[in-house]
Amino acid sequence: MQTICANSTSAGGAIAIIRVSGDEAINIVDKLFMPYNQKSLTDAAGYTLHFGRITDGENTIDEVLVTIFRAPHSYTGEDSVEISCHGSSYIIQTILSLLINHGCQMAQPGEFTQRAYLNGKMDLSQAEAVADLISSSTQAAHRLAMSQMRGGYSNKMRHLRDQLLEMTSLLELEIDFSEEDVEFADRQQLLALAQNIHDVITHLASTFRAGNALKNGIPVAIIGAPNVGKSTLLNQLLHDDRAIVSDQQGTTRDLVEDTMTIGGTLFRFIDTAGIRHTTDTVERMGIERSMRAAQNAQIIIMLTEPGVPYPDIQTTDDQIVIRIENKTPTFQAINATGLDQLESQLIKAAQTLTHTDSDIIVTNLRHQTALLSARQSIETVIHQLHDSTTPDIIALDLHACIDSLSEILGDLTSDDTLHNIFSRFCIGK
Amino acid sequence: MQTICANSTSAGGAIAIIRVSGDEAINIVDKLFMPYNQKSLTDAAGYTLHFGRITDGENTIDEVLVTIFRAPHSYTGEDSVEISCHGSSYIIQTILSLLINHGCQMAQPGEFTQRAYLNGKMDLSQAEAVADLISSSTQAAHRLAMSQMRGGYSNKMRHLRDQLLEMTSLLELEIDFSEEDVEFADRQQLLALAQNIHDVITHLASTFRAGNALKNGIPVAIIGAPNVGKSTLLNQLLHDDRAIVSDQQGTTRDLVEDTMTIGGTLFRFIDTAGIRHTTDTVERMGIERSMRAAQNAQIIIMLTEPGVPYPDIQTTDDQIVIRIENKTPTFQAINATGLDQLESQLIKAAQTLTHTDSDIIVTNLRHQTALLSARQSIETVIHQLHDSTTPDIIALDLHACIDSLSEILGDLTSDDTLHNIFSRFCIGK
Repeated sequence: MQTICANSTSAGGAIAIIRVSGDEAINIVDKLFMPYNQKSLTDAAGYTLHFGRITDGENTIDEVLVTIFRAPHSYTGEDSVEISCHGSSYIIQTILSLLINHGCQMAQPGEFTQRAYLNGKMDLSQAEAVADLISSSTQAAHRLAMSQMRGGYSNKMRHLRDQLLEMTSLLELEIDFSEEDVEFADRQQLLALAQNIHDVITHLASTFRAGNALKNGIPVAIIGAPNVGKSTLLNQLLHDDRAIVSDQQGTTRDLVEDTMTIGGTLFRFIDTAGIRHTTDTVERMGIERSMRAAQNAQIIIMLTEPGVPYPDIQTTDDQIVIRIENKTPTFQAINATGLDQLESQLIKAAQTLTHTDSDIIVTNLRHQTALLSARQSIETVIHQLHDSTTPDIIALDLHACIDSLSEILGDLTSDDTLHNIFSRFCIGK
Repeated sequence: MQTICANSTSAGGAIAIIRVSGDEAINIVDKLFMPYNQKSLTDAAGYTLHFGRITDGENTIDEVLVTIFRAPHSYTGEDSVEISCHGSSYIIQTILSLLINHGCQMAQPGEFTQRAYLNGKMDLSQAEAVADLISSSTQAAHRLAMSQMRGGYSNKMRHLRDQLLEMTSLLELEIDFSEEDVEFADRQQLLALAQNIHDVITHLASTFRAGNALKNGIPVAIIGAPNVGKSTLLNQLLHDDRAIVSDQQGTTRDLVEDTMTIGGTLFRFIDTAGIRHTTDTVERMGIERSMRAAQNAQIIIMLTEPGVPYPDIQTTDDQIVIRIENKTPTFQAINATGLDQLESQLIKAAQTLTHTDSDIIVTNLRHQTALLSARQSIETVIHQLHDSTTPDIIALDLHACIDSLSEILGDLTSDDTLHNIFSRFCIGK
């Protein structure tokens, strides 16, 4: 494997960590590094720390700490080195340039984790959880990522897959002996097992709505007639921690969304305010947009004021509707009267929406897609068992179901999909 | 010493490093850390690495690498621990909270380096160089900080101070024997020594202009009549690397300045463009402002166009003036014609301005102030030696000179000054 390097920390800190991984990692760093104890890194054991200077041959670039990892006891499973240097942009760039001059390649986003996956240090769902873990900003998102990273999720998938493989091998035995017309696998038992697998997959898939809400924020739409105070209410809800909101502006502004953590839960407020005050055509588009926002939201705040009817919008059973009459003694968005109670209602609604008795929660759209496809295959199998279909046909659909679950674990994942997954990581991980 | 902790990396990276330093550092981290090898950190040797989990007692917060440093072999000179965790804001905050719950205090900006200074790991000018090193974005700024950090600068100050101390002790010996009217110190020799010290200090102080320009950027003013193309030229000069400019917007916009690295040298462009186009009073203020900018600039680009005279502004011998006639076949700011040549002129001017044959360059205003004060004292000493002043009076001024040099090394620095110096550091360093 080509030796790769990258800065694994963000610019602007006191310290930066430059990661190097690959067969030549230790040899390459050894050429730049002058240890104060004069000992070559090439003889150093794994898990050892070395103090010295990085030089370009003439000048000292920085005084650094170098940590040696020996394969397979490293994050990537390869020989690896971490260089802890001062967080100056000049120093970081110069050290990376020196590494590249000595034979390293700049790492692609997620390439360290991709190597960890390729070297069998983790499966694909665990690798995906690493990215989720790094981006987690709430306890709920952190807990989900940590649980997935620690493999509970993968074990569940493997367990389902093992059951399916057992069913398949029984059926395939019948195919081998097909001329003798024996039935090794009791059809009632197979049916019960298939039904059970179907139920487990259905249950897992049903957790996605909660998992996605916990990870990406619960979508909340504020709906109401013009001028009842939607923008004011939105600003009040976002007010307490404007800094966190600003952090996300670059990504959320285009979507007219802002996220806010209330009571440890992330809410994603969809701003439907202010989109009505233009010409008629645009106003109609605005109303349609509010309608769509309301359809996709999990919580809808219906806002009105005395004398104005509540908006006439259809909601579904999955959605929680909170009705607020603004500009009254108990609620005034303009001066935050009643805001505490509204926040309590939001937190309570969030608990209802994200409650699940499942210890495994699906948070990843890729996994959900694979699960739904696995469910479709196992449904076909159930029909076939009812219809006494021949074992060779049933085995085909069982294999399709197994493949879908393998997709989640990454055992059967195409290079394109892998590239797609890891390119969403940050550089240096 | 109270045990302190801080995140030493910037938010948003793949990895974060949390630093802990103080008597209880290892004990406190040991309470949160579950090593996979089951060995307590309290028995761990310095410079060892440990892999395991940080937990809050119930939940795993992250899988981390912990590095142990034993006093005095650490950055601060105290027992220290570095926790390398995933760069999630939730994880960083949670680990810091756990550390604080177990008895750590959040570190003040620069507190780790302040402790290194207080524990004698570096003198004050070296500690200041650490902050310069971290913020260095060009090779020149990096080299200056690195040289100061490695102590060449401090050695020079110490050498001067030793010479002064020797002079003082000779004179003080005369004071002890003052009734006997002996002269231990040959006045001509003392005079020659004082003159030499004066020359060295004067030479050092003369490097400040170059040092400051290298560290903070060479101030360049673009001066010209309205509408000759000052803004266009400024934008062209800043164009190539707009991202770097944007990074600094928050700090430079208020000053109507933008920095740009050209040919490895940092330039600080003072925007005098566009401030003339208002009412008469404001216009006059604008012109005065251009005048002042021109006075403080080290390079002045005088911009004109055919038929318009060059601005009538006095320049000094220290300043380099570059005259450009815009809107001609050889120079057109609007489409960057001739810009390469202008940039070459700027780079050449920068080399002239920052050229110094001194191996020690003063970059810090605090040091410059102390040097100028030392020079004043040694000038007084020279006068006194000429005037055959009594040794007790001369010794007083020699002490004043010694104290000024000690200020640079930090041996005599007040708590307020120390606080002032370290509060400008980033947190975690």
